[in-house]
Amino acid sequence: MTDRPKTSANSMWGGRFAAGPDAIMEAINASIGFDRRLYAQDIRGSRAHAAMLAATGIISDSDAEAIGKGLLTVLSEIEAGDFPFQTALEDIHMNVEARLKEVIGEPAGRLHTGRSRNDQVATDFRLWVRDQCDAAIEGLRALIRATVTQAEAGADWVMPGFTHLQTAQPVTWGHHMMAYAEMFGRDLSRFQDARARMNESPLGAAALAGTGYPIDRDMTAQALGFDRPMANSLDAVSDRDFALEFLSASSICAVHLSRLAEELVIWSSAQFSFVSMSDKWSTGSSIMPQKRNPDAAELIRAKIGRILGATVALFTVMKGLPLAYSKDMQEDKEQTFDAADTLMLALAAMTGMLSDLTANRDRLEAAAGIGFSTATDLADWLVRELGLPFRDAHHVTGSLVAMAEGRGVDLPDLTLEDMQSVHGQIRQDVFNVLGVHNSVASRQSYGGTAPDQVRAQIARWKEKLA
Amino acid sequence: MTDRPKTSANSMWGGRFAAGPDAIMEAINASIGFDRRLYAQDIRGSRAHAAMLAATGIISDSDAEAIGKGLLTVLSEIEAGDFPFQTALEDIHMNVEARLKEVIGEPAGRLHTGRSRNDQVATDFRLWVRDQCDAAIEGLRALIRATVTQAEAGADWVMPGFTHLQTAQPVTWGHHMMAYAEMFGRDLSRFQDARARMNESPLGAAALAGTGYPIDRDMTAQALGFDRPMANSLDAVSDRDFALEFLSASSICAVHLSRLAEELVIWSSAQFSFVSMSDKWSTGSSIMPQKRNPDAAELIRAKIGRILGATVALFTVMKGLPLAYSKDMQEDKEQTFDAADTLMLALAAMTGMLSDLTANRDRLEAAAGIGFSTATDLADWLVRELGLPFRDAHHVTGSLVAMAEGRGVDLPDLTLEDMQSVHGQIRQDVFNVLGVHNSVASRQSYGGTAPDQVRAQIARWKEKLA
Amino acid sequence: MTDRPKTSANSMWGGRFAAGPDAIMEAINASIGFDRRLYAQDIRGSRAHAAMLAATGIISDSDAEAIGKGLLTVLSEIEAGDFPFQTALEDIHMNVEARLKEVIGEPAGRLHTGRSRNDQVATDFRLWVRDQCDAAIEGLRALIRATVTQAEAGADWVMPGFTHLQTAQPVTWGHHMMAYAEMFGRDLSRFQDARARMNESPLGAAALAGTGYPIDRDMTAQALGFDRPMANSLDAVSDRDFALEFLSASSICAVHLSRLAEELVIWSSAQFSFVSMSDKWSTGSSIMPQKRNPDAAELIRAKIGRILGATVALFTVMKGLPLAYSKDMQEDKEQTFDAADTLMLALAAMTGMLSDLTANRDRLEAAAGIGFSTATDLADWLVRELGLPFRDAHHVTGSLVAMAEGRGVDLPDLTLEDMQSVHGQIRQDVFNVLGVHNSVASRQSYGGTAPDQVRAQIARWKEKLA
Amino acid sequence: MTDRPKTSANSMWGGRFAAGPDAIMEAINASIGFDRRLYAQDIRGSRAHAAMLAATGIISDSDAEAIGKGLLTVLSEIEAGDFPFQTALEDIHMNVEARLKEVIGEPAGRLHTGRSRNDQVATDFRLWVRDQCDAAIEGLRALIRATVTQAEAGADWVMPGFTHLQTAQPVTWGHHMMAYAEMFGRDLSRFQDARARMNESPLGAAALAGTGYPIDRDMTAQALGFDRPMANSLDAVSDRDFALEFLSASSICAVHLSRLAEELVIWSSAQFSFVSMSDKWSTGSSIMPQKRNPDAAELIRAKIGRILGATVALFTVMKGLPLAYSKDMQEDKEQTFDAADTLMLALAAMTGMLSDLTANRDRLEAAAGIGFSTATDLADWLVRELGLPFRDAHHVTGSLVAMAEGRGVDLPDLTLEDMQSVHGQIRQDVFNVLGVHNSVASRQSYGGTAPDQVRAQIARWKEKLA
Repeated sequence: MTDRPKTSANSMWGGRFAAGPDAIMEAINASIGFDRRLYAQDIRGSRAHAAMLAATGIISDSDAEAIGKGLLTVLSEIEAGDFPFQTALEDIHMNVEARLKEVIGEPAGRLHTGRSRNDQVATDFRLWVRDQCDAAIEGLRALIRATVTQAEAGADWVMPGFTHLQTAQPVTWGHHMMAYAEMFGRDLSRFQDARARMNESPLGAAALAGTGYPIDRDMTAQALGFDRPMANSLDAVSDRDFALEFLSASSICAVHLSRLAEELVIWSSAQFSFVSMSDKWSTGSSIMPQKRNPDAAELIRAKIGRILGATVALFTVMKGLPLAYSKDMQEDKEQTFDAADTLMLALAAMTGMLSDLTANRDRLEAAAGIGFSTATDLADWLVRELGLPFRDAHHVTGSLVAMAEGRGVDLPDLTLEDMQSVHGQIRQDVFNVLGVHNSVASRQSYGGTAPDQVRAQIARWKEKLA
Repeated sequence: MTDRPKTSANSMWGGRFAAGPDAIMEAINASIGFDRRLYAQDIRGSRAHAAMLAATGIISDSDAEAIGKGLLTVLSEIEAGDFPFQTALEDIHMNVEARLKEVIGEPAGRLHTGRSRNDQVATDFRLWVRDQCDAAIEGLRALIRATVTQAEAGADWVMPGFTHLQTAQPVTWGHHMMAYAEMFGRDLSRFQDARARMNESPLGAAALAGTGYPIDRDMTAQALGFDRPMANSLDAVSDRDFALEFLSASSICAVHLSRLAEELVIWSSAQFSFVSMSDKWSTGSSIMPQKRNPDAAELIRAKIGRILGATVALFTVMKGLPLAYSKDMQEDKEQTFDAADTLMLALAAMTGMLSDLTANRDRLEAAAGIGFSTATDLADWLVRELGLPFRDAHHVTGSLVAMAEGRGVDLPDLTLEDMQSVHGQIRQDVFNVLGVHNSVASRQSYGGTAPDQVRAQIARWKEKLA
Repeated sequence: MTDRPKTSANSMWGGRFAAGPDAIMEAINASIGFDRRLYAQDIRGSRAHAAMLAATGIISDSDAEAIGKGLLTVLSEIEAGDFPFQTALEDIHMNVEARLKEVIGEPAGRLHTGRSRNDQVATDFRLWVRDQCDAAIEGLRALIRATVTQAEAGADWVMPGFTHLQTAQPVTWGHHMMAYAEMFGRDLSRFQDARARMNESPLGAAALAGTGYPIDRDMTAQALGFDRPMANSLDAVSDRDFALEFLSASSICAVHLSRLAEELVIWSSAQFSFVSMSDKWSTGSSIMPQKRNPDAAELIRAKIGRILGATVALFTVMKGLPLAYSKDMQEDKEQTFDAADTLMLALAAMTGMLSDLTANRDRLEAAAGIGFSTATDLADWLVRELGLPFRDAHHVTGSLVAMAEGRGVDLPDLTLEDMQSVHGQIRQDVFNVLGVHNSVASRQSYGGTAPDQVRAQIARWKEKLA
Repeated sequence: MTDRPKTSANSMWGGRFAAGPDAIMEAINASIGFDRRLYAQDIRGSRAHAAMLAATGIISDSDAEAIGKGLLTVLSEIEAGDFPFQTALEDIHMNVEARLKEVIGEPAGRLHTGRSRNDQVATDFRLWVRDQCDAAIEGLRALIRATVTQAEAGADWVMPGFTHLQTAQPVTWGHHMMAYAEMFGRDLSRFQDARARMNESPLGAAALAGTGYPIDRDMTAQALGFDRPMANSLDAVSDRDFALEFLSASSICAVHLSRLAEELVIWSSAQFSFVSMSDKWSTGSSIMPQKRNPDAAELIRAKIGRILGATVALFTVMKGLPLAYSKDMQEDKEQTFDAADTLMLALAAMTGMLSDLTANRDRLEAAAGIGFSTATDLADWLVRELGLPFRDAHHVTGSLVAMAEGRGVDLPDLTLEDMQSVHGQIRQDVFNVLGVHNSVASRQSYGGTAPDQVRAQIARWKEKLA
């Protein structure tokens, strides 16, 4: 049975609709304008189905062969751009099937045996989203590689570590870059999990109840690279979790991209000048030659809006829908298509931008020392070497910082006598922990900012990416 | 000055970009793919600007005349479908200006005097959104008309008034329809308010700081139908409130549409059969002739997802953007375009569907009496006529309903003796308030469901719509 | 009639529920934990209702007097913190009514005549949201005042005007501040419009159908400060537009707050140092005395998340609800309460923070000149004074900027001879437009950054606020 | 070092803040009002940290012992409800630490060695969210059990299988219930994946850069049940992916709940009467005894709003935040707390409601046959038995349905002669596939609605749940 029948298919199905389809109805109802993107998945699914129908004896081998060949013809027509998509045929499924009939004649009518548009579209769309998971994984691998490359170049370059956009402690450029490798790494694993969970075949669920034909759902599942058939036919046609999960994972990834993009925009300002954008990823002004607008970074920063919007859209659509199929679900595709396209573009742009980015090592280092950023190191030394309680050490440090601030100098510029005037037991080796290079070198805890730790992180990621 | 310069405009602006624009950058950066929809607004704004430049003596009358004519030529080319849009020229503004230069030569270079792409795009987009407010208002008027027509036909048809999808009290079909007239009426006033608030001209804000040219912003404002120029040039180029407010109003309207659509879907079920959808707005099954899938209603119900998603998208984009213009804001258009198109389509489809809808009067009336729906009327009679306290009246009513339920009959089927066995003072005239027609007729409070009240509502709306 | 009856009210309403209320059901169903915030509105509404019942002769004057006095007693108990709220009584309405019965006895039972919990809660909540509109308007007025005060102090202080966080043209501090006055001014008018639209009374709609009692809805509407009764009783109990519109307006306002907050965070960084936060609105580090974390600004920046989240929540709840009342709608209050509290707090915090903010005039001015920010002024001079076409003027300017950049100087540091080597007709008076003060002074177009224009803006706002 | 210092901690940290904390600042800044929920996690984390400090020789064993015991004292005070939470101490961390100092004196000062509030709060919150994953998994297992129990009771009860809320084909009650088992099963696996991904320890990341103390992050990770320490300290303090992923998974789960809830609301209507709600989960009317409002179902349906809102809120908060810690992130907890509480309550309520639900077998079966729901079976028989092409079979079926419809009978009521008048080869055994029981029995494809298939599904789930 084919449920989800269509008004504009009236002409095909005889005269039960007294009134002709209205232009508004066609505009709101037809999906061929967007679901044509599923053509490859649709044809792949139909070929697998036809082969199974023959293997189980439901149709003849010769019919299956004709169908298989005919579908390849249709595929090549679409890929060549020659295919005459017809809005009157409403969707990609009917367009392909109608053309198949023109190409091979009567056997085309046997293709739809034991399936329905409901399981067909569920299969097509699932295959498409699965492909997007693969694309996201590939894009993320490239982006992590770009991150690691940046990190490797500046594993020991010091820069300010910010909290509240205020200098907190010195860190290294490599450390900062590798924080993003971790984020994108989680994104990658999220797409892997989503892919594994969605990798079940709806095909054979038919309209909603399964079918009486002796179909072999395992066979089509395997042919399409699915791990298994879905276990419940009602669920198979009404489930759009795979899209919701893909959108959610994309939104989290887009948050990460927005955070890095925000940093790049701020770092590109004249006031920060931490990085120089390549011309490829920025734009200039016709009369202000020094101006490099970080357009690509700004656009990437904005993309979370679009992807989160698509996510909210599909959640809202799916809210409260009774089983099994409701036409509301036709709203699933455009949102997912747009979010996927946006994500892939943003990943590519960020990868390119990061690859072409020049970090201004001197500016970073100069900024790292601003604001007595090694005061914590001094306090820690007092605890560690002199056994002061933590809070007391902070008090001593506060007094020394106040002294330095009063003189307009940094902590390492104080003399040992200055230091001892605040706490008599301070020794010469305290100076080993002051200064930004000493500071970062000392933070040897696992995952810390010490260059050795950063290089170990880099090595682990290079191995994972290999 | 033109800020918001563009990579792909490099060729125009000389060789300062060593590297050529990359395909990825073009894909993420170019807006001509969607902002071409602003062509009419762009040309209208430019014509107003040129006329003002001449009137203030900034350019010559002959230049202004050439520009004005040339822009009309460009307009007609675009409307004829002949216009060669070029992605390398990035956006609608540069496409129009470049073509203008081809058409009229050197004077074209004077058009951009005293303005910038920042105020230009702000003006174009604002004009476009203002047009959409007008379209929404028009669409809502048509929809309210359809609602009123339905209401008028069935001003005294009784149907169940539901709470929790359980029958609560009888109401009339007209009353139910007019509830939507009220909702859509509020939508209409919301778009009117939004239109009034956005109706200020950004033109002349230039890049962000205003200009030193002696421009006359009042003149361009007036020419473009704006009430006044915007008061602050930084705000003029960085404000997208008008789009946010349009989207918010659209989302509220889409909620209303989703509620009515949900009712139509439920009412179309075999179990309810309250309404029959016209073939124009539903689809059938090739083999189940009685099946009429309410596709249009389902799709309308889903549209709140899309519109709310666009709303969330733009809110998220605008979050935390520093003044004045950031490239992130280029993400404003596609969301607003899609939401506006969706809203107008949904309004039209609902208007059509409602106009063609047949309410099944008999089914409605039969359903209205289910569940002792006039029990409240009985209780109210006890309070009003016998002076029982409210809670006591409920107790008596509960006992009578239990008696009727036990006998499998409705309240009017009890005898006066039955009634008096529960409360001795009950009189014969109690039967006047039982029965669904009596019930609705009695609810004469302002805005109540009594047919007279409903007709008064209808009359008020017809006057407003006249 | 009371529809929307409650499980835990079983004990009151007799034994028809065989099973007792379950703890989970109570947890999901009871609203007294949050709707107690509506106590003042609930009592106000009940007093108006009782007075009307007496005026129309539905209840006796003595009963109405007892009810009115008793309600004041209950009000004072609640305000004194003595009121024993009971979860078993589920909501604020039943808690107040039950206590009223204890206080005045039998007449309490007459209060609920001709109304229902459905119109009662709709009235209470609407009154509450209306109060929040007033609070938002008040908060916005205070914030605009703070903005204007900042603007007035620095009406002629120059600072960089940014696009893409890159210096574009010099503007004034006052101009930048007044951009926010415009934004907050639109917010204010949005709350005014929302208030006007929601100012209709649902009271008297009863459960959903109106009532047979000869109530006077105009009288209660007037007593509660509403402009008129709502026109359709079904709509009156099922409408939550007023909350959706309040949330939407709050979200737009929160976007504005997030933008200003973002600027304050960036401006507070060591790299920008445009402003100094007061200690009142920032936090320090125990050992880094120079560190001032802009906590309040960061928190305000974040609040758009919370408010937008509440907005999405209520839109999603309302999607697809059939008329008239569904229990889903009980989810309206907590979201609106939280969003309103958040908005008022954020407005107050921003007002305080802005009032205590010190702009670092020297840093602003120094930054204003970075990046040849007056190149546009030079180009405009060439167009205006020498009659060069716009694009040619840009070419000449580009060459001069390149010359200055090559020498490491700013544009005003070039000699007249340098200038003439690029374009022979340049005259000495070109220097009048170079330099940031000249630049801002020249931008005299309406709404432009010239101090005179800024002061005119300030004057207009002071008048409006007076 | 302790970054993320606090205004109201000024009194502790000396006099550098000239101005006292303002009430507004306290209101916006303090988190103790909500983060007290993290007390158990905070104490658990501190105990693990202290033990590690002793094991690595950073503090003495006796100090560690005092700290460990003291923390247990604090824990028992909190659990007893005796703990004097102080807003002036701002958050749960400072409240616990300050009390610890009162209890054990000086050694308390050593607890904070080698950590910061940044990694402390990240650890606490992550532990809390991990607990919620476990709770969700447990709740889902219970819900699936309830679903399976319902399915088992009615594995062969026929009911209408709907598409578009129109009868499409008969299915079984068990099949319909098991569709939800599949959905909730995916939810369960999503929480498992999220839990595994978040199960890394931030502890030891310190403020953001790691520490110079020779801490052992593996040891604390293991003590807290984490799989490993997080690999990058900047990421450790700035990551909130675990909350975003928990919220996303919760939103998908809430969509499923909303779909089932919608079905229960519709099925509870008088028109459907497919199910009877238990009194425990519904409410009645005081005077309409037959009325059972499905309050619990409606509230569950609404909860997707609240959870999706929280999700949007945190996504919006995290958008564009630079590394490492920004105060904005304090907005993470209330949203996640509320969403988690809401989800657990909704899961429990749905489990209870489903357990107490009575399906009205007769109504279901009667409805299953409405609308020629076995027309597809007839068409399939024609294809399978007579070798008709699919589309031709549909044509024949359509004619027979039209014949039956014309006579006001169902398909099985036609005679063989009637059938043969449309297609001569139709045989007596066609009647084996007509009738709803025959129809469902025939759909033997894997995952289909045949009772055997349904029982196989049930068996698989019972094994998984065992």
